Amino acid sequence: MPQGQPSVVPDDGLTTRQRRNRPLLAVHTGVGKGKSTAAFGLALRAWNQGWPIGVFQFVKSAKWRVGEERALRVLGASGEGGTVAWHKMGEGWSWVQRDIESSEEAAREGWEQVRRDLAAETYRLYVLDEFTYPMHWGWVDTDEVVETLRNRPGTQHVVITGRNAPEALLDAADLVTEMAKVKHPMDTGQKGQRGIEW
Amino acid sequence: MPQGQPSVVPDDGLTTRQRRNRPLLAVHTGVGKGKSTAAFGLALRAWNQGWPIGVFQFVKSAKWRVGEERALRVLGASGEGGTVAWHKMGEGWSWVQRDIESSEEAAREGWEQVRRDLAAETYRLYVLDEFTYPMHWGWVDTDEVVETLRNRPGTQHVVITGRNAPEALLDAADLVTEMAKVKHPMDTGQKGQRGIEW
Repeated sequence: MPQGQPSVVPDDGLTTRQRRNRPLLAVHTGVGKGKSTAAFGLALRAWNQGWPIGVFQFVKSAKWRVGEERALRVLGASGEGGTVAWHKMGEGWSWVQRDIESSEEAAREGWEQVRRDLAAETYRLYVLDEFTYPMHWGWVDTDEVVETLRNRPGTQHVVITGRNAPEALLDAADLVTEMAKVKHPMDTGQKGQRGIEW
Repeated sequence: MPQGQPSVVPDDGLTTRQRRNRPLLAVHTGVGKGKSTAAFGLALRAWNQGWPIGVFQFVKSAKWRVGEERALRVLGASGEGGTVAWHKMGEGWSWVQRDIESSEEAAREGWEQVRRDLAAETYRLYVLDEFTYPMHWGWVDTDEVVETLRNRPGTQHVVITGRNAPEALLDAADLVTEMAKVKHPMDTGQKGQRGIEW
């Protein structure tokens, strides 16, 4: 998409530079493909800027994101760009020392760590992959998430992906993209394939 | 997105394995963000599979894709996954030895190279970034593109990004995602920022 010009010049007392570097909350939602892939594509830009990146994968699956994870780990270890910390719910969050009984508890533990990292300004970009679901299911309180994100210190960008993004989250977001399914191979009987779906 | 089950089991005489490995033509279109970023996210999966990847960037801009390009070059050179060949219209296609007068001619030269590479099965994934525009503007003949893609040999996946994807291309595609803009920071006067837009 061309960079373009803003359609409104806001009367907020900020300089262009200040406004330009405002922390962004982006949400990729909808039932189409590309919500998470676009978030990881964004992580490539952040890596190129030398930013520390924190990925929190709020899904449990052996196959999901294996390609993205390996690529971002190689990039993070290359010493040429930013660092990458990859946290996976499926294997138990690494910072949790005891067994977690339920996915609900695991999701809450993940969010608590995100909160701590936001407070400590640990990362410059947070990818909260599939994080809409714990909110949608009521496992994590959406109002608390919104409140925390609104008040986060410094310049920390946050991208949240997944279907069924709660309205309050969309209201709080600076950038919302809906990935709409126009046509999908599964409609004609094709199953997911390696290199494409994972 | 969960892998899910196909909603129809087709009567095409193919085994699941054959069907599963069919070459895909994907189109990311619409006015929202994430069309190209999702394509480059897909490239991470292809890289993880060890596939040769060819990127053809049909745009002219100093800033566009700098992060993605650097990241994919580092990955391609890491020796851990697939290779990456990055072709940029903005700097003149590297295989063209003379000066190119116009963007129109440059776009056509790019497409001719894609055709040669498809015939030679040079890559396993092609990212034809912003390639909808040369078709939309009539610089490259859409019917010829569709015909070439329909008849491409082997298992070569192709992802085409950009707004205004021609109808005939959408008809030929296996997977079409429309990135719809729900909310964008430029609406409230914010300009693009480093690490997010490039």
